[in-house]
Amino acid sequence: MLNFDYSIPTKVFFGKGKVSVLPEQIKEYGSKVLLVYGGGSIKRNGLYDDIVKGLKTNSIEFWELSGVEPNPRITTVRKGVEICRENKIDLVLAVGGGSTIDCAKVIAGAFYYEGDAWDIVKNPSKISKVLPIATVLTLAATGSEMDVFAVITDVDANEKLGTGHPDMAPRFSVLDPTYTFSVPQNQTAAGTADIMSHTFEAYFSSTKEAFLQDRMAEAILKTCINYGRKAMEEPENYEARSNLMWASSLAINGLLSFGKDKNWVVHPMEHELSAYYDITHGVGLAILTPNWMKYILDDNTVEKFAEFGVNVWDIPRDGDKYVIANTAIAKTREYFVSLGIPTKLSEVGIGEDKLEEMAKKSVRHGKIGSLKPIDHEDVLNIFKASL
Amino acid sequence: MLNFDYSIPTKVFFGKGKVSVLPEQIKEYGSKVLLVYGGGSIKRNGLYDDIVKGLKTNSIEFWELSGVEPNPRITTVRKGVEICRENKIDLVLAVGGGSTIDCAKVIAGAFYYEGDAWDIVKNPSKISKVLPIATVLTLAATGSEMDVFAVITDVDANEKLGTGHPDMAPRFSVLDPTYTFSVPQNQTAAGTADIMSHTFEAYFSSTKEAFLQDRMAEAILKTCINYGRKAMEEPENYEARSNLMWASSLAINGLLSFGKDKNWVVHPMEHELSAYYDITHGVGLAILTPNWMKYILDDNTVEKFAEFGVNVWDIPRDGDKYVIANTAIAKTREYFVSLGIPTKLSEVGIGEDKLEEMAKKSVRHGKIGSLKPIDHEDVLNIFKASL
Repeated sequence: MLNFDYSIPTKVFFGKGKVSVLPEQIKEYGSKVLLVYGGGSIKRNGLYDDIVKGLKTNSIEFWELSGVEPNPRITTVRKGVEICRENKIDLVLAVGGGSTIDCAKVIAGAFYYEGDAWDIVKNPSKISKVLPIATVLTLAATGSEMDVFAVITDVDANEKLGTGHPDMAPRFSVLDPTYTFSVPQNQTAAGTADIMSHTFEAYFSSTKEAFLQDRMAEAILKTCINYGRKAMEEPENYEARSNLMWASSLAINGLLSFGKDKNWVVHPMEHELSAYYDITHGVGLAILTPNWMKYILDDNTVEKFAEFGVNVWDIPRDGDKYVIANTAIAKTREYFVSLGIPTKLSEVGIGEDKLEEMAKKSVRHGKIGSLKPIDHEDVLNIFKASL
Repeated sequence: MLNFDYSIPTKVFFGKGKVSVLPEQIKEYGSKVLLVYGGGSIKRNGLYDDIVKGLKTNSIEFWELSGVEPNPRITTVRKGVEICRENKIDLVLAVGGGSTIDCAKVIAGAFYYEGDAWDIVKNPSKISKVLPIATVLTLAATGSEMDVFAVITDVDANEKLGTGHPDMAPRFSVLDPTYTFSVPQNQTAAGTADIMSHTFEAYFSSTKEAFLQDRMAEAILKTCINYGRKAMEEPENYEARSNLMWASSLAINGLLSFGKDKNWVVHPMEHELSAYYDITHGVGLAILTPNWMKYILDDNTVEKFAEFGVNVWDIPRDGDKYVIANTAIAKTREYFVSLGIPTKLSEVGIGEDKLEEMAKKSVRHGKIGSLKPIDHEDVLNIFKASL
């Protein structure tokens, strides 16, 4: 196990009705709030009204930034920063899924930065201070509700970049699974794929002696496999929605990766796809993942994939390692198919023309991946296998 | 899944050499420290010297409270409170295992309480404010390094009681597995049994729909089973020591029990044994656990025990549920035997005479246990089966 520093300061208020804690918690940070949300689903399901009522009753002033995009844009961040500065906002409250939360995080970070907000996306070391952030989660997927990262897109430049800062961890997050009852099937599927992908990024590491972390990763994967399809078929199944929601937070808050070598691989590949084609992040991940697994399977990685097959997919352990590994990869693919996610890039409108460019960009900081680092040629091969 | 509020504020500095962060971290809280430790093993293994050197180099004044007992006593707590008050201590630094940490916690809590320290053990609601606490852990067992609880004994009254407060969570804990290299075999065994017992207390709950938490509990159990014996045979095996150490913290910091009904059962029973006979806590737990499992096995609990057998002990799932459950319980007992832990109360000097009295005390607040609550008659039967 590698050395690590653990700090997960976000408080979580989990369960039905927990949105009631909002006013009291907000008041610990001030009385002026920027409410950040997306396309308006929170108005349809009543969440917006619940929140606004709580704020008004408690004399908390608020301003609004709505229309945050599924791949949130730097232009929207800039608007938010302006509102915060004009009105001396005390806390940025994101109400939505990962995109909304990521947007709120970068608004909060850019608030104290004198230059343009895009600078702190390109270079996180420019973040020195961050406005307090809180979230009310409406989608189990990115885990942004409990981590320190944010991903923002500059559409004009085809750039989708990740940034982060310890103070970007939300001060508190309200996780009420009933607010995900109205999440449509395709988004439930993409969110489940995203949680699984975060777990894979931690699980398929070169660090072999983090036994405990590996078993916990398998716990998250089994949870996704057990409940992803169920949440699609029975959207108001509280057991399924609550397990997926809590899995989304634990998959990426550090628990699975503390003590392990980290170098994400499928995420940086996918970020190029959605930077260029604005596709759904979870769909891109689900398309690439089995092809990436297949591509890096070799004598050095087969043990890990066999472990994955035995512990996650219940494949009997007494068999040829390669057979177990290939079965595990096939089962992963089948699972994504069972969620109704496309299996080919061509199905989401991606052709051959920009693959080379995207492959180069995905390794802009060097090789990606921990279990088996890959370069731009490898990425290109995986893209081509995914067409 | 039940509603829950999650907050685990303790920072953890994990790994070899991490004790170097101590002076810098302490300075965030002040410059006067009470150093609390036990029988002196930290002087033999060099840890005491490392810490004192760091404090002196950084002009941090310190006072000492040594000789904390394995079942820490209220008399020792009182001494610590006195030193803190006389010297206006800013932070209580526990260096040791759970006993030392528990003692430090209650000193820190009693510091601000005007009456006698025993009052806040008997009645945690009397704790209003707590001095900052930090720990350097030397034994993987109680998890006190990352939780809010403490257990203190009044030897004269044969009382061993648990108390707790959110601010009793250590501000930070240094977890360097190399400091557990010198832990003797019997203490390594008892510590492993303690971690497993904390996990069982969360796992065997009446809440059935916390799938994720149950899979994570199994991750901790598998870690203990994989490394307990190994750490005894190869005391300087870093992989074994680090996995056990991190498991000790995660088993009881809330991760496994958030969202589940909680009512501990084997711990309250064991606390009576060590209150009356001053036996090693982990040994008492290991003796009682298989007998408690056997006792509560019935048509309502067999599913859970079968799940335990399949997921933790790798027993094939296609078989009679009772056979799987009984095999799982037998394997649990065999595992404790393989750790060299006694299997009978008579082996640790406990006879029949006080069983009735201890049984009554263990249910002083009502029935204990979540999966199947038991009363004093049941406890007595389990005690008798353990003789």
